[in-house]
Amino acid sequence: MTTETPTHVDPAGPPAVAVVDAQTPGNVGTIARGMKNFGFSDLLLVDPPELDPDGEAYGFAGHAREDVLPNATEITFDELVETYHTVGCTAVTNEDDRGHVRYPFTTPAALADRLSSVAAPTVVVFGREGVGLTNDELARMDEICAIPANPEYPVLNLGQAATITLYELQNLTLEETQLPDVERTRAPEPLLERCFDAWTGLLREINHPEPKRAKADRMFRRLVGRADPTEGEANTLLGILKRARDRPDRTDETN
Amino acid sequence: MTTETPTHVDPAGPPAVAVVDAQTPGNVGTIARGMKNFGFSDLLLVDPPELDPDGEAYGFAGHAREDVLPNATEITFDELVETYHTVGCTAVTNEDDRGHVRYPFTTPAALADRLSSVAAPTVVVFGREGVGLTNDELARMDEICAIPANPEYPVLNLGQAATITLYELQNLTLEETQLPDVERTRAPEPLLERCFDAWTGLLREINHPEPKRAKADRMFRRLVGRADPTEGEANTLLGILKRARDRPDRTDETN
Repeated sequence: MTTETPTHVDPAGPPAVAVVDAQTPGNVGTIARGMKNFGFSDLLLVDPPELDPDGEAYGFAGHAREDVLPNATEITFDELVETYHTVGCTAVTNEDDRGHVRYPFTTPAALADRLSSVAAPTVVVFGREGVGLTNDELARMDEICAIPANPEYPVLNLGQAATITLYELQNLTLEETQLPDVERTRAPEPLLERCFDAWTGLLREINHPEPKRAKADRMFRRLVGRADPTEGEANTLLGILKRARDRPDRTDETN
Repeated sequence: MTTETPTHVDPAGPPAVAVVDAQTPGNVGTIARGMKNFGFSDLLLVDPPELDPDGEAYGFAGHAREDVLPNATEITFDELVETYHTVGCTAVTNEDDRGHVRYPFTTPAALADRLSSVAAPTVVVFGREGVGLTNDELARMDEICAIPANPEYPVLNLGQAATITLYELQNLTLEETQLPDVERTRAPEPLLERCFDAWTGLLREINHPEPKRAKADRMFRRLVGRADPTEGEANTLLGILKRARDRPDRTDETN
């Protein structure tokens, strides 16, 4: 961990993540891991606990033990406020505008939408376990962010709150995810029509009652239609339906 | 923890949450807490570790130590598959439809959209730390869900993955969150216009160069327009602008 103030902050870079007065090294490690999971790299620590390379911080950091955690920067709260546009995260907001400390607020999803069109050094700031950021600390933040949750128990643990916030902000950092493109997976319509034809043929071959066939055809078309089958799925389905319709084994036996 | 199979599953209720073969009691506690944070209550455990009331599971559960965790049900994997529509969560999907085990898949956000219109007993299933759900286990799931993340390191820790998934699914359980309605907070337009008038008056009183006043007026209108001020903020702003314009203190002094 370095103790230099970040003097060359990239205004077009993704937001930094700051943790103020964390008590538990394991939480710092969990946050570092969440940062790496969603493409963040600049971890700023105000009054951090000692981060022993053989302790829980590194134990909980996963692959972030290789970069995010050892590259974390120790910084003062004053330096944080002076250097960055600060977004303070809290579970408890004011109800209305009678106070300015915790109202108005934004949510991680809304913040992701807005910041995607703003180039400026920004930091998302999380407070200590238990009490989070104090009112004095929140008063110095440029804006407030809260995760919508159960009104009976909205207080997430520190690592969970940070992870959800970074999950929502990942469009600011990642150009793509580990997931393949989930669009365009539906099988070609002619192939699906061949499935429906094979189904109709099967109904005929098994002597499904004539008056019920049209309804059974519609049932199958709707069921398959909602499932958006892939080409592979449709090919497998077609092969099995045709085999069930034609029963080549049985034909061989009776010949 | 009870060991009965859930025989009376509410088909219209929110999804249950299952954890298969968790190794660490602390993770079970973290998941229980996340469940309570987002309004889930049915925790099902397959081959759980021992959950000592004085141990980490209860230590990490927050207020869920009072209900979600002690009410957790131990269940076999077979019972899980037979009783529920199962959604298996994994970080690693297949790339395309050459295999059916991990493809097609859904995401927590898409799952929340779809399930909000389906009444049926559903369970979201998470696997053990480290390796998650095995291929054999995933093959028996009804569908697969993956959290989009950094392609270079998409593997979240168990507690983080569960919390993000439940965060996305909270619209299935919660009618409202702890946050007040964030709509309708903008100050009435006549009040904002009085702010703009006071600004214009201030420019005049401080002898801001005449040719630059219209531009400064537009700057202020745009700045305030983007910020959607609350009525309280606008009232405070108006008072200060008028006081800056009129300088009643100075007038008193010079009289």
